Amino acid sequence: MSVLVVGSAALDSVKTPLGEVTDALGGSAIFFSAAASFFAPVRLVAVVGNDFPLQDLEFLKARGVDVRGLEVADGKTFRWSGVYHLDMNNRDTLSTELNVFESFKPKLPPEYRDTPFVFLANIHPELQLEVLNQVNNPRLVMLDTMNLWIDIELPALKKVLAKTDGVILNDQEARQLTGESNLILAARGVCKMGPKMVVVKKGEHGAFMISGDDFFAVPAYPLELLFDPTGAGDSFAGGLVGYIASCNEFTPAVMRRAMVCGSVVASFAVEKFSVDRLRDLTREEIESRYARFREITGF
Amino acid sequence: MSVLVVGSAALDSVKTPLGEVTDALGGSAIFFSAAASFFAPVRLVAVVGNDFPLQDLEFLKARGVDVRGLEVADGKTFRWSGVYHLDMNNRDTLSTELNVFESFKPKLPPEYRDTPFVFLANIHPELQLEVLNQVNNPRLVMLDTMNLWIDIELPALKKVLAKTDGVILNDQEARQLTGESNLILAARGVCKMGPKMVVVKKGEHGAFMISGDDFFAVPAYPLELLFDPTGAGDSFAGGLVGYIASCNEFTPAVMRRAMVCGSVVASFAVEKFSVDRLRDLTREEIESRYARFREITGF
Repeated sequence: MSVLVVGSAALDSVKTPLGEVTDALGGSAIFFSAAASFFAPVRLVAVVGNDFPLQDLEFLKARGVDVRGLEVADGKTFRWSGVYHLDMNNRDTLSTELNVFESFKPKLPPEYRDTPFVFLANIHPELQLEVLNQVNNPRLVMLDTMNLWIDIELPALKKVLAKTDGVILNDQEARQLTGESNLILAARGVCKMGPKMVVVKKGEHGAFMISGDDFFAVPAYPLELLFDPTGAGDSFAGGLVGYIASCNEFTPAVMRRAMVCGSVVASFAVEKFSVDRLRDLTREEIESRYARFREITGF
Repeated sequence: MSVLVVGSAALDSVKTPLGEVTDALGGSAIFFSAAASFFAPVRLVAVVGNDFPLQDLEFLKARGVDVRGLEVADGKTFRWSGVYHLDMNNRDTLSTELNVFESFKPKLPPEYRDTPFVFLANIHPELQLEVLNQVNNPRLVMLDTMNLWIDIELPALKKVLAKTDGVILNDQEARQLTGESNLILAARGVCKMGPKMVVVKKGEHGAFMISGDDFFAVPAYPLELLFDPTGAGDSFAGGLVGYIASCNEFTPAVMRRAMVCGSVVASFAVEKFSVDRLRDLTREEIESRYARFREITGF
């Protein structure tokens, strides 16, 4: 089954202790699409400027990503630049140029409206609501957000949360959204806002999921070399939602395997800059690392 | 097989957001013994003052803890008092009175010298070395330490590390000891100092182990109510070493199950003040939570 993603497309300039890259393919919708496309057909909605290197998306098209929803607007593409500290857990944003993303109004092509799986990447909650107004009875709606919207757009965020089936947050966001310092209570607090499924990402500490009565925890893959953490969260979401879409059911077993698929794809995404590692990644490599997750957690 | 533990016995005064307790049973050797005694006979070496309520140790004796190595010295017992912040991840030490612990020189009763499993709880590394000089060819020596000794007694600590089979550290200590920010590299760096087995504890994020070629990660039990984190690390070590001693072998399967046993006992220890939850804990409760660990990690 197909997955719709609505989010950002960007050109990222990133500096890490291991190197740097300028105007590289980035943005939540791009990372998500690259990750999800290993599991399910993807329909992309985002906006770029007329400076965007559209040919860089060929590898996505080749993997079944439908880019008819990618609007090319007059102006410059959204640009983000940042630098990661030595420990890779912290980064400083050097600049954010919204450019054409500033006036982004998601418009779904008519043939996208019946997409059964919907991922609302991190954009303004009002825009997330506008996307939901354009889809017809999706089977599953999942959402990402960020500290900024929790700070300044909480009522709109709560409105969209009430309409979603699942939410993927990091630990700080879960605590900020609920005011609970205990992460388990924070996740349960988010459930009370609407979503049946809450996934809390904890970076190097892995992730956990509360889904109805089910609880599942997965460690992060033990990477010795983290090359560039940019896009890890969106890649995780792509693997997770893509896997669920490929199964088209919501049993605890599917949700758990989806958490592992998300972890697997995210662990590859951070091995190179931009989406580079997701370009040449193979199905065999994904399956091999999935098996490795079983090995490192079984007892 | 028996386990020898050498560490502190203390009277703790602890304040948490959920209550407070004064002069309660504490100290690394006491928590360790209470935890390990569910799995194996324990031999305790520590020192207390003549103000120590020896009758409070009856529950340990009843569970097979040999307290002949508990020295009663003239003076007051080691006292620690601290207050936990709302998020329970941080605490402030209000006072530390070493008292009789200041001049503690571990003296093993002759009948302890052949104990096959040895746990050197967090004491001065020179004292840990003195303990090793008093045991005859132990099968397994494991060690705990703290930031203080890494700061001021690194040469002695490295000397004892070179003589141990395994070490249990928290994430900050592993980073501090090696200067590596990546935790996997930090753990491997500790391995290079001698121990074949390195366990890194991460509090609410669980723990992982590198043991020879094996890697294993376990999440923390999803507790909604953390009553008092004091002694969690020593309880974890007690469950872990106690389980290994009960198996008397060092296969990856045993080491992994030991990690889960440590996590199980630690998750109970923090449910009440002091060792109170470990007093009335039953074998059935341990087995039930062990099974629950399988449920929350399986996929």
